[in-house]
Amino acid sequence: MTRLTTVTVLGTGVLGSQIAYQAAYSGFTVTAYDISDAVLEKARGRFDELASVYERTVAGGANGRATRALDNVTYSSDLGDAVKDADIVIEAIPEILDLKKATYSALSGLAPLRTIFATNSSTLLPSDLMESTGRPDRFLALHFANEVWVHNTAEIMGTAKTDPAVYATVVEFARDIGMVPIELKKEKAGYVLNSLLVPFLDAAAELLIDGIADPETIDKTWRIATGAPAGPFQIYDVVGLTTAYNISLAGGPKQREFADYLKTTYLDHGKLGVATGEGFYRYPVSASVG
Amino acid sequence: MTRLTTVTVLGTGVLGSQIAYQAAYSGFTVTAYDISDAVLEKARGRFDELASVYERTVAGGANGRATRALDNVTYSSDLGDAVKDADIVIEAIPEILDLKKATYSALSGLAPLRTIFATNSSTLLPSDLMESTGRPDRFLALHFANEVWVHNTAEIMGTAKTDPAVYATVVEFARDIGMVPIELKKEKAGYVLNSLLVPFLDAAAELLIDGIADPETIDKTWRIATGAPAGPFQIYDVVGLTTAYNISLAGGPKQREFADYLKTTYLDHGKLGVATGEGFYRYPVSASVG
Repeated sequence: MTRLTTVTVLGTGVLGSQIAYQAAYSGFTVTAYDISDAVLEKARGRFDELASVYERTVAGGANGRATRALDNVTYSSDLGDAVKDADIVIEAIPEILDLKKATYSALSGLAPLRTIFATNSSTLLPSDLMESTGRPDRFLALHFANEVWVHNTAEIMGTAKTDPAVYATVVEFARDIGMVPIELKKEKAGYVLNSLLVPFLDAAAELLIDGIADPETIDKTWRIATGAPAGPFQIYDVVGLTTAYNISLAGGPKQREFADYLKTTYLDHGKLGVATGEGFYRYPVSASVG
Repeated sequence: MTRLTTVTVLGTGVLGSQIAYQAAYSGFTVTAYDISDAVLEKARGRFDELASVYERTVAGGANGRATRALDNVTYSSDLGDAVKDADIVIEAIPEILDLKKATYSALSGLAPLRTIFATNSSTLLPSDLMESTGRPDRFLALHFANEVWVHNTAEIMGTAKTDPAVYATVVEFARDIGMVPIELKKEKAGYVLNSLLVPFLDAAAELLIDGIADPETIDKTWRIATGAPAGPFQIYDVVGLTTAYNISLAGGPKQREFADYLKTTYLDHGKLGVATGEGFYRYPVSASVG
């Protein structure tokens, strides 16, 4: 099996930065690509913050490894330059179909033939994008969860055209960068995690909207019954109420009612969940990453 | 607010025994009713087992409290005798509508007028039963979860006719017997817990039946992403695959497909989950309670 050693991550947003830093922390040679030097300048700040989070948590104290990992990262706003030596390109750009397709088309002519392309898309299926890559056999989805150093799942999902050897190589790569590979045997919108999470969170929203019980009661029930550390409304606050709003707005009548409730009760007052210090619950203010 | 001190539990099955023993352990005077002395003889064995579980776990060592709690329990197969001094009757008899209605009709003439009636029914709404009680204002649902000493929720659900003062008295009673009261503001099939659990477990079943991923992968994803101690298939094994089968059989096409899978893969081979030592996973064999 091919071992991948050079990684290019496209997009330096919240998750793109985390993926790139996690690979750098695991000893890989990483190129972080974004559209302009100004954006990359902001990205440097994100990477520095990540290094201090890792120093405190993952590295378990200041032994310098997390800071030294920054040396493994090169920044580039030139797509051709960014991918010219990549064994794998992980795409974490905005969830806009046409933008992704155009990016893959450009990429297909710039990256070496050996390069594997992986999309981190949450909402698109890899088969929506495969033809634009020019190499569907070397293309699949590799999907990370926010705070990759804690929630270290990497969901791996190919299309009917993905070469099984490429799939296996990416499973190995995910493990090498410290992730637990979650192998999906077929394409599935929402992968495994969101396929479980969405109906669960919808059910909680329905209990609230129908006036059956309040968020504290619902969360307490789940925690005591299942031993989980967090109930559904605590999870909503972590996911972020803007994301919850956008997903709910695209749902059925009950979900749209919940979206409306989220907007008027929380979003309109700047309460977006843990990130802003308040959502369904209040949180102590602390430095946030991403 | 009235304080309840004498409790009669109708039915000495798995949950009836646990409810009665939990109340006795909390210092209440308890009468355990069942239909014959032969059944009650079996119940005594259950109560003895519960006392030893409590001694080991809840009481945190053999200080004798759990055994002494058995002195608070009286056994009776005479319904009139069993309820004649009851402040509250908790009904935990089989989930058969006509049987429950007949029992409440009999009860209405036998219990003092002050006595509150509470049903532990999982599958019926209290409004299905309220007219047969002859006292709908003093009737509601008080729903326990298996292993009450660990999963100590008591879901409390009234009907439109339940007197709010009675509701409040039962909330207080639930707290007094060591439960966390879960207050539902309206009737809801499945209460809070099963309203969350069923769609979550259904989603997991669908991922399996559709061949997206295997149970270990699905469970691992949930555990890592949410920090929960158990994924959906581990929960299936705790709930018991016979129960899962019966519920799935009454569902849509995908659920019925899952029911069929459960039957041929597990039930037909005596694999019923944790209780039999094997279900989706294997478990070390140990003494079981109930």
